[in-house]
Amino acid sequence: MSTACEERVRALRGQLARQELSGFIVPHADEYQNEYLPACAERLAWLTGFTGSAGTAVVLSEQASIFVDGRYTLQVRSQVDVRVFTPRHLIEEPVHSWLSAVLRPGDKLGYDPWLHTPQEVKRLKEACSKAGAALMPCEPNPIDALWDDRPAPPEAKVVPHDLAYTGKSSEDKRHQLSRQLKNDGIGVAVLTAPDSIAWLLNIRGGDVEHTPLPLGFALLYQDGTASLFLDVHKVSDALTSHLGPSVRIRSVSEFHDALEQLGKAGERVLCDPNRTASWIPEHLVRVGAQVIEEDDPCLLPKACKNTVEISGARAAQKRDGAAVCQFLAWLSQEAGKGRLSERDAQAYLDACRRRQPLWQDSSFPTISASGSNGAIVHYRAADQQPRMLAPGTLYLVDSGGQYLDGTTDITRTIAIGSPTPEHRDRYTRVLKGHIALATATFPKGTTGAQLDALARRPLWEVGLDYDHGTGHGVGSYLGVHEGPQRISKGGHTVALQPGMILSNEPGYYKNGEYGIRLENLVVVILAATGDGAGREWFAFETITLVPFDASLIDGSLLNVTERDWLNAYHTRVRESIGPLVDSSTADWLEQATERIV
Amino acid sequence: MSTACEERVRALRGQLARQELSGFIVPHADEYQNEYLPACAERLAWLTGFTGSAGTAVVLSEQASIFVDGRYTLQVRSQVDVRVFTPRHLIEEPVHSWLSAVLRPGDKLGYDPWLHTPQEVKRLKEACSKAGAALMPCEPNPIDALWDDRPAPPEAKVVPHDLAYTGKSSEDKRHQLSRQLKNDGIGVAVLTAPDSIAWLLNIRGGDVEHTPLPLGFALLYQDGTASLFLDVHKVSDALTSHLGPSVRIRSVSEFHDALEQLGKAGERVLCDPNRTASWIPEHLVRVGAQVIEEDDPCLLPKACKNTVEISGARAAQKRDGAAVCQFLAWLSQEAGKGRLSERDAQAYLDACRRRQPLWQDSSFPTISASGSNGAIVHYRAADQQPRMLAPGTLYLVDSGGQYLDGTTDITRTIAIGSPTPEHRDRYTRVLKGHIALATATFPKGTTGAQLDALARRPLWEVGLDYDHGTGHGVGSYLGVHEGPQRISKGGHTVALQPGMILSNEPGYYKNGEYGIRLENLVVVILAATGDGAGREWFAFETITLVPFDASLIDGSLLNVTERDWLNAYHTRVRESIGPLVDSSTADWLEQATERIV
Repeated sequence: MSTACEERVRALRGQLARQELSGFIVPHADEYQNEYLPACAERLAWLTGFTGSAGTAVVLSEQASIFVDGRYTLQVRSQVDVRVFTPRHLIEEPVHSWLSAVLRPGDKLGYDPWLHTPQEVKRLKEACSKAGAALMPCEPNPIDALWDDRPAPPEAKVVPHDLAYTGKSSEDKRHQLSRQLKNDGIGVAVLTAPDSIAWLLNIRGGDVEHTPLPLGFALLYQDGTASLFLDVHKVSDALTSHLGPSVRIRSVSEFHDALEQLGKAGERVLCDPNRTASWIPEHLVRVGAQVIEEDDPCLLPKACKNTVEISGARAAQKRDGAAVCQFLAWLSQEAGKGRLSERDAQAYLDACRRRQPLWQDSSFPTISASGSNGAIVHYRAADQQPRMLAPGTLYLVDSGGQYLDGTTDITRTIAIGSPTPEHRDRYTRVLKGHIALATATFPKGTTGAQLDALARRPLWEVGLDYDHGTGHGVGSYLGVHEGPQRISKGGHTVALQPGMILSNEPGYYKNGEYGIRLENLVVVILAATGDGAGREWFAFETITLVPFDASLIDGSLLNVTERDWLNAYHTRVRESIGPLVDSSTADWLEQATERIV
Repeated sequence: MSTACEERVRALRGQLARQELSGFIVPHADEYQNEYLPACAERLAWLTGFTGSAGTAVVLSEQASIFVDGRYTLQVRSQVDVRVFTPRHLIEEPVHSWLSAVLRPGDKLGYDPWLHTPQEVKRLKEACSKAGAALMPCEPNPIDALWDDRPAPPEAKVVPHDLAYTGKSSEDKRHQLSRQLKNDGIGVAVLTAPDSIAWLLNIRGGDVEHTPLPLGFALLYQDGTASLFLDVHKVSDALTSHLGPSVRIRSVSEFHDALEQLGKAGERVLCDPNRTASWIPEHLVRVGAQVIEEDDPCLLPKACKNTVEISGARAAQKRDGAAVCQFLAWLSQEAGKGRLSERDAQAYLDACRRRQPLWQDSSFPTISASGSNGAIVHYRAADQQPRMLAPGTLYLVDSGGQYLDGTTDITRTIAIGSPTPEHRDRYTRVLKGHIALATATFPKGTTGAQLDALARRPLWEVGLDYDHGTGHGVGSYLGVHEGPQRISKGGHTVALQPGMILSNEPGYYKNGEYGIRLENLVVVILAATGDGAGREWFAFETITLVPFDASLIDGSLLNVTERDWLNAYHTRVRESIGPLVDSSTADWLEQATERIV
């Protein structure tokens, strides 16, 4: 009997043969180049079964491969029929290297120009050309023709996001960017990143789960006005009045016309070569516009939160910390009885969070992972037969909330019963890495790539590591993953700047046994220190407020600085969260934040 | 009275006006894109007076600027007429950003296509285009027409480098690369980096000071044969017989013809877009060849030293350590008397080194810097009125040797008389950074950019930093600066690999007061540790063998690991160097390597 996956790949190959293509590439992205997809854009999942948040499949006539990163190397094998798709590591064996090795002269590889950025297309073209093959745009996407029960596109209402949370009016934001466009001699900027549009116009939507994104396109003109292209069903009167006369709301079908007009006017149009579907700049050039490749101008101002957004983040973290502490206090009572499943724990945690003021949604599906499931970095209990929380194991819980005033993301790892010496050694090393990053001070101009090794060093010392980044940017009631800031091994050159919110989440994973991850959010602040030479120095303020599991800390591995930081942090957690929780949680909190000596 | 600099710039502007150019860009590079230049290629120094090893000048009709990095911010002001050239920081205000800000629409900026790589030309073109200006190739270089007393090109003999030092025959190296060219479908690789040619053909030359480079061009063919284009005066019978029949020696004037032939044959020709003069690939395309942009294929195999080269490096370091210890022992006797100048010290050190077996040259001009001169990162006593070594100051000495079996580079900072508490604090922090890097273990795939912050952290903690990289690659009886490996803030993605030799040289500089730099060479080795998952782990073996000045170490700032490393290192230095030195140096060595508690 053939699997659904086999049948779909067979159908796709038939389709490709009819179009005289040797293969087709299926990325995770949608036309907004967005990590979070509506169901109608889950082409990769439809074809392969893989539901992770990043990955690429390539179907050739004789073979097929799926490329995922280190977070998903275990998950991909449990979801995908590996007889059909060979799993490969996205970083160690990049798609383009693999393509130039396996494609043959004369091969034609198809791609959907709405699902790849110009930079990706460039790399793919080079890979094909190296093998003597050609890269061919395919419109419409051949998968869409095969996908019978494809869900309809979402139509969630787009709503204004209040100035009390954004701290800056859309008009002010647009005028700031308008000055920049003028300086650079750019007439219009194309915006397709849903979170950029949400930030710029102070709007939020509901088109994807867990992130309040309005899917659509926008054009920002040099004069500070904008056009917003939205499915008409998403528009409400409140939206129209919020946006005012300087923002023209138009239907998505008018987007093509608007691009043609830019072409006719010979405009200089900004397109982000790393964040816009390649169809757009290619079309602009075809119709006569001049494309200027520059970063999405919303990227940096969105990443550098203003004081209102930072205050919002701090406030959201207090409420979120209270919810997580309530959960952990309950867990400390219940887990030892051996009757809790991963799903029970998740349900309780989600319920604690849901009761908090300003809560809107979880910021991603809670990862509630017992024992060896903790080693699956992006494990979802909902996808599996849930496991019980068993004594002698570690329990890893990674979760977050979307609050009107901020987005949260926290991971704690808890010993169920008594931990082993190995558990304590590894946990303490991960904690040392976490503290090394939390206490780092660094000069203006430093990137997250430079800081990443500080968090890994205590593991590297004993030949261990973790196969994911140390920190991702976090939005303000927006994406729980947000660029351009991040803390990871490299390939990015964006300097950290005050106001950026990032996660600090080193981990350690032992396949088949356990996973450890310790995640707080931090905000980049101006440091008190400095060399007096007028150069600015930055540091991190940790804003997540939940204790670390003291039973997993081997105090003999901590140095004085680390111990001092930990005790000061626990004192701050107790003083901030204590007043917000019920008495049994407060009792637990007292104990959980006792001084470590 | 106008300065030489004013006159030359005025003459250049006249020349530019005749060619209808608005400006001209003068890089430090020559046609080999080489850091070390023969006198005839010192165009930047001729025009500006600046003699540093990296920099770029731009002369426009109304203004002129010179761009240098952090090592040269002090030196540039002492050498260049700042009324003519405004000094700017190469990293903080890159040439291309400055150009796009100051050029006006319609401006034509000239450049010499032999002195810029294709990548640089691309960036310059983009910068010009942003300003509505154009970038224009200029041949011949307008400076050459003005430079009356320009020295003749060098004609040093090119000599074979013995298999006893190279460890691998040229034939073996060429056949290894030939397989790679075949795999990539490349017919010919253009080699213009003198150290790549030297490595590939196991030859050395004498065309520039301090580095045994043969300046010329080479073509490596897919079948493993090569053509070497050299000034005929450089060729000896020994060279011809060493190279054998598979390497055709041809005169430089035949290089153009050879490129035309590649064009006629429609060859696929590899050119490194970051290391070849842009004239070459542009010309290849003009004459019909297909240019493949890839790294110089010699780059990585040259950087990853084989076991013979590593043994050679270790042996050279012992002799070099003996020479430096002899110098430091002498210095400890003489410096306190207050009668030594920087130049006396340099002369003594150079003499100690010159007596060592296999010594050929110093690997760069010794930096012998007393007191505030130490804050000038690339200070040369020879350029200045030399200062005396005065009690209560720090003395920084950075030097190295070219031995047939290896290239060395070491910096020590010595207290003359009693150091201040601030001296000891800063020195110890630099040492902590040095040790953090020396003891790092890291997984395969790690780049030097990831490790850089480990060395900076002890300074960052108190708001201090240093404005240069932490480590550069080092050749094997070749360039004391060698790519692609390095340890610095970023912008490079080459993973460290076993056999690579690098410097480990954090520092701290207080303008007008003192400079501290502590430099050893390390070689990347396979580490004993590992996670058992089959992944390789690497570490550094320190191969430089000279004590650190104990009077500058504040033991209370060292943790146990750091103290243990330092004592073990000093024991190794004593045991390795003791048997090689005279009795008074041995006595000094005993004392200098006493256990620190």
